[in-house]
Amino acid sequence: MKLSIIAIGDELLIGQVTDTNTGSIARMLAPHGWQVTDTQVVADDAEAIRRAIDRAFETSRVVITTGGLGPTKDDITKTTLRDIFGGEMRLDPATLDNVKEVVAKRGLALNELTAAQAIVPTSCQVIQNRVGTAPIMWFEDPDGRVLVAMPGVPFETLQMMEQEVLPRLLKRFPDDAPVEHATLVVTGMPESSFATLLEPLERHFPPGMHLAYLPKPGYIRLRLDYTPMRASLGGPALDGLIGGPALDGHIGGPALDGLGGPALDGLGGPALDGHIIQSYFNALATRCGSNRVLALRDASLAEIVQNHLTQRGLTMATAESCTGGNIAHTLTLVPGSSAYFLGGIISYSNDVKTRVLGVSPEAIAQHGAVSIEVVEQMVEGACRVTGADCAVATSGIAGPGGAVPGKPVGTVAIAAHTPSSGTVSRMFHFPGTRDRVIDRATTEALLLLLRNLR
Amino acid sequence: MKLSIIAIGDELLIGQVTDTNTGSIARMLAPHGWQVTDTQVVADDAEAIRRAIDRAFETSRVVITTGGLGPTKDDITKTTLRDIFGGEMRLDPATLDNVKEVVAKRGLALNELTAAQAIVPTSCQVIQNRVGTAPIMWFEDPDGRVLVAMPGVPFETLQMMEQEVLPRLLKRFPDDAPVEHATLVVTGMPESSFATLLEPLERHFPPGMHLAYLPKPGYIRLRLDYTPMRASLGGPALDGLIGGPALDGHIGGPALDGLGGPALDGLGGPALDGHIIQSYFNALATRCGSNRVLALRDASLAEIVQNHLTQRGLTMATAESCTGGNIAHTLTLVPGSSAYFLGGIISYSNDVKTRVLGVSPEAIAQHGAVSIEVVEQMVEGACRVTGADCAVATSGIAGPGGAVPGKPVGTVAIAAHTPSSGTVSRMFHFPGTRDRVIDRATTEALLLLLRNLR
Repeated sequence: MKLSIIAIGDELLIGQVTDTNTGSIARMLAPHGWQVTDTQVVADDAEAIRRAIDRAFETSRVVITTGGLGPTKDDITKTTLRDIFGGEMRLDPATLDNVKEVVAKRGLALNELTAAQAIVPTSCQVIQNRVGTAPIMWFEDPDGRVLVAMPGVPFETLQMMEQEVLPRLLKRFPDDAPVEHATLVVTGMPESSFATLLEPLERHFPPGMHLAYLPKPGYIRLRLDYTPMRASLGGPALDGLIGGPALDGHIGGPALDGLGGPALDGLGGPALDGHIIQSYFNALATRCGSNRVLALRDASLAEIVQNHLTQRGLTMATAESCTGGNIAHTLTLVPGSSAYFLGGIISYSNDVKTRVLGVSPEAIAQHGAVSIEVVEQMVEGACRVTGADCAVATSGIAGPGGAVPGKPVGTVAIAAHTPSSGTVSRMFHFPGTRDRVIDRATTEALLLLLRNLR
Repeated sequence: MKLSIIAIGDELLIGQVTDTNTGSIARMLAPHGWQVTDTQVVADDAEAIRRAIDRAFETSRVVITTGGLGPTKDDITKTTLRDIFGGEMRLDPATLDNVKEVVAKRGLALNELTAAQAIVPTSCQVIQNRVGTAPIMWFEDPDGRVLVAMPGVPFETLQMMEQEVLPRLLKRFPDDAPVEHATLVVTGMPESSFATLLEPLERHFPPGMHLAYLPKPGYIRLRLDYTPMRASLGGPALDGLIGGPALDGHIGGPALDGLGGPALDGLGGPALDGHIIQSYFNALATRCGSNRVLALRDASLAEIVQNHLTQRGLTMATAESCTGGNIAHTLTLVPGSSAYFLGGIISYSNDVKTRVLGVSPEAIAQHGAVSIEVVEQMVEGACRVTGADCAVATSGIAGPGGAVPGKPVGTVAIAAHTPSSGTVSRMFHFPGTRDRVIDRATTEALLLLLRNLR
């Protein structure tokens, strides 16, 4: 099933708030074979909302809107929907009860504006929003076109989508061919080199199969998509292609040789058995080479680190200067990180570097805080202070100020320590703004650790 | 000037990557009076791209596209633009030189795919992308409609937009009335209570003025927008409204009384002198009350903390358990944070809490790691270990695992220490997922610190 998403809100258009709802909804629907054909962001403006809805129904039978349903007067979505789908506005007693309950849970009193959330068009079916005051409205016109209006607050959208709206959509539109996705995370070469390497394989893809490159600094996600053409599903033409001699000859050996080692246990993708894309995905992974494959599913670097360390029974710590806690934050966002992550020191000032991490003041005086010598002492200090087996450390100039002669903004010293490699380190020069330098340094620190875990 | 933005890429539609380019571009254009009327996200599909461009030109004279220009075969934007604007594809020597230079800077060799980036439609003017290999293409049709195709990599888009595309757009369309914005950050009441408080003021807004509520857990940004109607700019009708008796009588006193204290120095907004919205903005701030106003401009909590602490000459540290470094990361994302932020301890394991922060093992055994007793010892440990004047500390259960009887997921103990208040603390129960609990705990820790800086 194809659907369109519309995010409503002036704050999104002036860039004050970044829309994350459309992505969350898309991720939730993809496994069920639902495809988002397009998304639009429009202002809190009746004409703009109406035009966006008209456009969305041109390509999709289902439209989801998010936002534009707050209690304040900048929200006009509700009356616009009433104008489109007809009916009158009415106070819905069940919705009012729900609003009262949500407000009471927050320890607040009901005021007139919040109570007005319970006024809804008679043309919609209300789905009670148990985590917020804006009701979810399900509209369906005589042609069977469905519009679901969701709140704009991300956690409300996510939670209610998962618990209420998704099950209803799947029930309402039960039989749609699933779209298959599988993602490989690779590192060690630029995008164009992987493209040259994989191009011969891509030439053998069946119709409906497509490889997308999603490069990030330091690593690349390769996403293989396959939308079966209903007519040819399982037909002889396709059967002949999969596992046929042309492909076998090309990848030179059984699929996934060299990828079955313990390092990738737990990083395998979703079960693809019986799916058309299985053998193509295996061939891709084999051709990339086991030394370049970080994961056989769409995993973040933090998830990959967690997997590798917990499998080896190793613990980890951080010593961060210029990254200011971002490495630890990135690692601890992953559920279960407490199984291997012991803690870290953010040694922003030189005083904390010496007092807490035991870096020698002489090293700082002689080489400067941003140096191989200091960052190596930091990484060893992190292991010593926390008792961890492994650690990463960063010391650099994130900018925009702080540059010194010979060390421009973007200069970052990074060290990693593992039981097998001991302490290793490298000096980097990252381009870009402060947040980009922090991001790059975080990525390279984790990659340096992963490379030294072999 | 109105413009439309189109982000191109399958990865955006399946939610694998979040589009941040449209917001960055909108923020860059807003101060120059350019308004983004809508944004669309579409697939790497010729028909979808063509349809999106047609739609965009319905409401805007200028369209910016981002993405869909990579060297790999999943990008078909370039040929689609050639089909729309006409001409042939040609290898542009100047672009090839630029591509070679960018590739060499990255220490890579030029391959066939990367070289193909220099093949562009004859119907466009190329703007060299000095930080990436995808050229920026400026198309203009006989009706003076402009389309600028930008790369999808966020830092390339940002940098090239700022340095090359924005100056050209401003030169090409020199005379457009600016749109005025001013933002107030408030706390201490829910959105609907602020709405009730401010509604009488809103009734006196002139045509074209609008107040938007942007609530976040813990605080709200109030954005006042004003788009002058050209005909009435400076006319007597508007003059009579500003500062007139109706408004003066309502706010009950000179604007901004009680907000002129040292606490808000440096948090004042952009100079609004002579702008129509000045007096309305002042009236809003006064009506909210000085104890509820955190900043008179669109500042993040981290910027507000930085401002308050540097003005008082105070230093700060963090001791984080469940927030895992996110508080320190949030603070250190702000340029200049090293002026007051000394560092922090991420005490994820109990061992680090006792060894590094000096929390007594008895307190952990008796009250548990997630307790007022432990978090107060953590915040004092952070001050002692780093030598900071102020600190915040968190200890909680971010989930999804880790709940214990009486302490469900979302339970977080938070403490703050300031020279004037000593150590203060509070127990919270946050709903939602792991990342949301971490975010809320970060926000509440900073708010607890700010409230105790008076």
